[in-house]
Amino acid sequence: MVKLKWGLVGGGEGSQIGPAHRLGAQADGLFTLTAGALDHDADRGRAFAQDLGIASDRAYGDWAEMLAAESAREDRVDLVTVATPNATHFEITKAFLQAGFHVLCEKPMTMTVAEAEEIVQTVAETGKICAVNYCYSAYPLVREMRRMVTDGEIGKVRLVVTNFSHGHHADAADADNPRLRWRYDPAMAGVSGQFADCGIHALHMAGFICNDQVTALQADFASTVASRTLEDDAMVNFRMQGGTVGRLWTSSVALGRQHGFDIQVFGETGGLRWASEQPNQVLYTPLNGRTQIIEKGEGGLSDEAARLSRVPIAHPEGFPLAVANIYVDLAASIRGQPHGALPTAEDGLRSIAAIHQAVISARDDGAWVDARPPSLRGQ
Amino acid sequence: MVKLKWGLVGGGEGSQIGPAHRLGAQADGLFTLTAGALDHDADRGRAFAQDLGIASDRAYGDWAEMLAAESAREDRVDLVTVATPNATHFEITKAFLQAGFHVLCEKPMTMTVAEAEEIVQTVAETGKICAVNYCYSAYPLVREMRRMVTDGEIGKVRLVVTNFSHGHHADAADADNPRLRWRYDPAMAGVSGQFADCGIHALHMAGFICNDQVTALQADFASTVASRTLEDDAMVNFRMQGGTVGRLWTSSVALGRQHGFDIQVFGETGGLRWASEQPNQVLYTPLNGRTQIIEKGEGGLSDEAARLSRVPIAHPEGFPLAVANIYVDLAASIRGQPHGALPTAEDGLRSIAAIHQAVISARDDGAWVDARPPSLRGQ
Amino acid sequence: MVKLKWGLVGGGEGSQIGPAHRLGAQADGLFTLTAGALDHDADRGRAFAQDLGIASDRAYGDWAEMLAAESAREDRVDLVTVATPNATHFEITKAFLQAGFHVLCEKPMTMTVAEAEEIVQTVAETGKICAVNYCYSAYPLVREMRRMVTDGEIGKVRLVVTNFSHGHHADAADADNPRLRWRYDPAMAGVSGQFADCGIHALHMAGFICNDQVTALQADFASTVASRTLEDDAMVNFRMQGGTVGRLWTSSVALGRQHGFDIQVFGETGGLRWASEQPNQVLYTPLNGRTQIIEKGEGGLSDEAARLSRVPIAHPEGFPLAVANIYVDLAASIRGQPHGALPTAEDGLRSIAAIHQAVISARDDGAWVDARPPSLRGQ
Amino acid sequence: MVKLKWGLVGGGEGSQIGPAHRLGAQADGLFTLTAGALDHDADRGRAFAQDLGIASDRAYGDWAEMLAAESAREDRVDLVTVATPNATHFEITKAFLQAGFHVLCEKPMTMTVAEAEEIVQTVAETGKICAVNYCYSAYPLVREMRRMVTDGEIGKVRLVVTNFSHGHHADAADADNPRLRWRYDPAMAGVSGQFADCGIHALHMAGFICNDQVTALQADFASTVASRTLEDDAMVNFRMQGGTVGRLWTSSVALGRQHGFDIQVFGETGGLRWASEQPNQVLYTPLNGRTQIIEKGEGGLSDEAARLSRVPIAHPEGFPLAVANIYVDLAASIRGQPHGALPTAEDGLRSIAAIHQAVISARDDGAWVDARPPSLRGQ
Repeated sequence: MVKLKWGLVGGGEGSQIGPAHRLGAQADGLFTLTAGALDHDADRGRAFAQDLGIASDRAYGDWAEMLAAESAREDRVDLVTVATPNATHFEITKAFLQAGFHVLCEKPMTMTVAEAEEIVQTVAETGKICAVNYCYSAYPLVREMRRMVTDGEIGKVRLVVTNFSHGHHADAADADNPRLRWRYDPAMAGVSGQFADCGIHALHMAGFICNDQVTALQADFASTVASRTLEDDAMVNFRMQGGTVGRLWTSSVALGRQHGFDIQVFGETGGLRWASEQPNQVLYTPLNGRTQIIEKGEGGLSDEAARLSRVPIAHPEGFPLAVANIYVDLAASIRGQPHGALPTAEDGLRSIAAIHQAVISARDDGAWVDARPPSLRGQ
Repeated sequence: MVKLKWGLVGGGEGSQIGPAHRLGAQADGLFTLTAGALDHDADRGRAFAQDLGIASDRAYGDWAEMLAAESAREDRVDLVTVATPNATHFEITKAFLQAGFHVLCEKPMTMTVAEAEEIVQTVAETGKICAVNYCYSAYPLVREMRRMVTDGEIGKVRLVVTNFSHGHHADAADADNPRLRWRYDPAMAGVSGQFADCGIHALHMAGFICNDQVTALQADFASTVASRTLEDDAMVNFRMQGGTVGRLWTSSVALGRQHGFDIQVFGETGGLRWASEQPNQVLYTPLNGRTQIIEKGEGGLSDEAARLSRVPIAHPEGFPLAVANIYVDLAASIRGQPHGALPTAEDGLRSIAAIHQAVISARDDGAWVDARPPSLRGQ
Repeated sequence: MVKLKWGLVGGGEGSQIGPAHRLGAQADGLFTLTAGALDHDADRGRAFAQDLGIASDRAYGDWAEMLAAESAREDRVDLVTVATPNATHFEITKAFLQAGFHVLCEKPMTMTVAEAEEIVQTVAETGKICAVNYCYSAYPLVREMRRMVTDGEIGKVRLVVTNFSHGHHADAADADNPRLRWRYDPAMAGVSGQFADCGIHALHMAGFICNDQVTALQADFASTVASRTLEDDAMVNFRMQGGTVGRLWTSSVALGRQHGFDIQVFGETGGLRWASEQPNQVLYTPLNGRTQIIEKGEGGLSDEAARLSRVPIAHPEGFPLAVANIYVDLAASIRGQPHGALPTAEDGLRSIAAIHQAVISARDDGAWVDARPPSLRGQ
Repeated sequence: MVKLKWGLVGGGEGSQIGPAHRLGAQADGLFTLTAGALDHDADRGRAFAQDLGIASDRAYGDWAEMLAAESAREDRVDLVTVATPNATHFEITKAFLQAGFHVLCEKPMTMTVAEAEEIVQTVAETGKICAVNYCYSAYPLVREMRRMVTDGEIGKVRLVVTNFSHGHHADAADADNPRLRWRYDPAMAGVSGQFADCGIHALHMAGFICNDQVTALQADFASTVASRTLEDDAMVNFRMQGGTVGRLWTSSVALGRQHGFDIQVFGETGGLRWASEQPNQVLYTPLNGRTQIIEKGEGGLSDEAARLSRVPIAHPEGFPLAVANIYVDLAASIRGQPHGALPTAEDGLRSIAAIHQAVISARDDGAWVDARPPSLRGQ
């Protein structure tokens, strides 16, 4: 089986997400890092690309150069990952899709709903894969929860409660720290702070596990650190198409929470609980029964959960391998093989719409609003 | 030190809360169960009272008989606990207060805000103690958290996140179970189901630990089981007088949560986390420091936390002894000795008002409302 | 139901174990503290007894005075608890038994095996109850584990692994602290330090839950703090009559362990795990099945587990109420009613023998020795 | 930076450890899988090698062919991993070392002490790297614990308590399961079952974290399933050169333990606790202070711990990336760059000696024996 050729845009030296993508794409021997435009500083990007083993003629100075050159090659890369600053995702993703490349885009897919609608439209026109890196959905036990819900093992889902809260932005003295400041400044971060940064992962996960869509929401946003314009704490209540009630809390000032991303799904005949800091276990409580601990790798899990884990039961697999699972499914998808439920451009669109609608609700004292993008309201 | 004489109204055979009160009052040898009107069936109540060691002339058929007889005695009881069905709390509590008895009333103190205002007025007129059994506030480490917050050890409190959620009412087939049915029927339970039953403990705790008052709130209520009129799941956002943002989730259909009452308090310089199922530990995270585990009974805790625990570090003390701590403080209060912060009739009033206002908000699509009773809005 | 009359020897002001006994005896309204010889300082003891509500004529100056006076009364106490310094347990317990009183003795029952044999003999002769306060065995879920094992729910027990380890004696600078020093000085503590103090609880629990007896053992003792003569850390391997293999670790220098008493029982068809810091849950893993969480108070537990808990599921009950459960069963036993498995004088004897034999093994480089007292080796 | 060329012996299709090595070597882009003799079936091995992207001329039928061919190439592989059945490790490892290759050998390095001495000798003669895959030692927080101990942050280490226990071999009906049977059959597994399989990881870890060597030990072995000749449960007490007392329990019949590998290190001024199922946290308790949670990725950790983690705090990294860290350090070591403490052939030798000595002790009723190989007893 020949490895697929992989191109990376962004993710240069010092990038936070770059290492996870490089590991994710290469861990299982499915992709070879073949081309890259890794840095906004062209020379640094070319040098780092060659450090990583990319041939000099495919170590590009910027993404446009890469697009032109790769488009012209017969041995063009099979997949392009876009891991650049948020505001550039739209333009780059659209361009590569239009040129006939498959794309994995970091979240957020775009800054505006209109842009996101364009990406969805482009995917429809080109037939190319456009996945968005909601990588938490690729943990084996998250896939297993989705399967359990879909197969009716917990009955109709009444309630989803999720949060994604940390305390790493709690220090008010950090106001001028450039690593943080942009996140709460609308000029750089867009309409939303913490909800767009972390909360949206939780909202995506709710839809993913329930195999359902968020239709309405209301939001309460707070900027608990005085210097911030955008919210650093948010509560979002929502409803799903199937009637499920949702509760989502997200915060960046929750001192003591390191990475408090968990989700609880409560159905008519069972409940599930998963947390990202211990991703290899799910608590499952059947109605009128005892809570059971489901372990990654135990006998009897679905083929998909088994396929996405690499080492035996109780040998933990963590975040980088959840990213790797996205690449596992992308490789299968590119090759036309069976694969699991990848997060799509439509997921990206729904997320952008939900962020913008939550902002509107928060400004309107928590009024209920339609959570969906205009193009999907009839559905 | 002579024991105090204790009278109990309600809490008869088979009562769920009766055992906790009997244990709470007697565990530390502070009170003797001296008089009682324990059951709505007068004969059963008298018989059970005598089984519990109450003299036959103080084993009463109903509370009115008890009120009359005890009022006429020179050796009248020092404290009356009211543990009857909710709708009767107001009448009984008011009558005993007016007759000059100290009262510990089960929650809810009353069914309406007007009644609660009357109790507060009665307390002011009589000078008697009226405590409400928000017993979670009497755990040693809860008192310690309140002290830490009050002493500024976590800075100004930005955010409180609390929930009180269980799954014991998740079985739809239980709709006709009389133990559950009344809770979701407005004719019996009043205006609110799960929020009034459990959520209000969490709201009280937020105010108690922060030493602050809830001023505004908005609510999203859901009845996830079709047969129910009142809510079995609720999300309440709130604001406190000092500016703190609050988030409170409560549910009775959260399968897998047994007694999910926890509270997290996030300040400018530290965070705290406590959970009722492991009440002998608090997680404390100072800004820019590591999370620490505070243990009940460790050296260096406040005198109050030390006074309210009985056995050494890591020997767990549970719920019945939290109730006992309410009695410890009541005994001290009755004797005019120093004691901790008992939940008062004003707390009862604020709670009733918050419940009624949350119902109004929930009916009005989550509009923000004043959480306070009319008499306390100017404050 | 008239309360039983209770007498207490030792447990005076400042005693560590006294409060647990007073609470344990009185929490459920079963006993009235009627007589006491609470302190080696007669005046202090009498004053404290009266503070606790004991009538002045039954507030004794010492245990001999109490023995004489109570023996002469028609309304003598129904039960005497012996909570004095260890070296005095034998003499006092024996005297009260011989005078016809039921006794609850703190552990260790005696200092020597010969003394323990005498107590067992005395019990046989008098027909009186002599219980030893191995109170951990009275937690509802410990009783449930015993029932599960006895009923064959985990099959033949292959292996028991238990430890009781803390770090509260880890500070070498504490060498002269009188609260600690005696524990490691053979002149005051006897032949063993940490194993006799804590480890023996774990050894008793192994026998209790497995409903079996330890027959052989080997020990490795260490004094990790230079100033100590007796061991502060010990590992004991053992075998039970039914063939079960046992492993027991106990330490007082395990910094970070607060009260690390846990026990794991592994049978042919299931495993159990319980820990004293979260005594209201047991983990149960059936062969080829998932781990389940058993909760105190859940439906379907045995009558005995139900009888020994007071408040609903997930409302924690702690150490003082385990002691109270010993008194619950003592009251039933005194009244000739059905009750659970109280720790007996024979248990006390087996414990003393095991301690002495472990010391012999440790001195003999871990040689295997018979763990049983001479009188029980034929069995 | 040109990637290193990597050769793999064993680890073919269906191998349990093969995937972890392939992921470990390739995850960080440091090695390219260049040559392989993956299967005892030559054709299957060649086909699978080519599936994995190995060129056909370097997809070998067996290790001898690979040795000959690679030795003859100028572009020979830089590292050979030996992941074959245990009994073959010695021969293959020795041959590649002698031919001038660096080797990473799976544990156990050899079957006998004499063989292990030969490997150590061969390393000394050739100057090549021979690492043994005690990969748990490469978790970032394990390295941090070693650093803390070495820097004296918990004082002189008094006590190490570790266990590695699971219940995956608890089913007696599994006696004929070929996946399990060989493990308890001396003809296939050698002198020891569970202690050699899992326990030895714990013993290595004790030495690794304490930066000390085990000098003496005593063992109690049990075969709790009747069909087994070798032990499925063992307790080993040991002493280290610096005086530390050690306790090690290992079991394969501990139903409910999935992968119970944890280690506690207790020093004069602090305690540490780490568990392999949550490898991204360490509990640290300073003398007279509160327990603190150390998180992988937190600020202030050592350079080495930082270097060996890839994603931010609270994003878990699991077992496959611990294996990858072995390869990270091997790459650095091959390149002559600074690197952390890799497990060496001497570690492998000490482990084999300890296994053989434990067997002797167990047969001799737990007599204390020298734990060291003959060549290292003088040290």
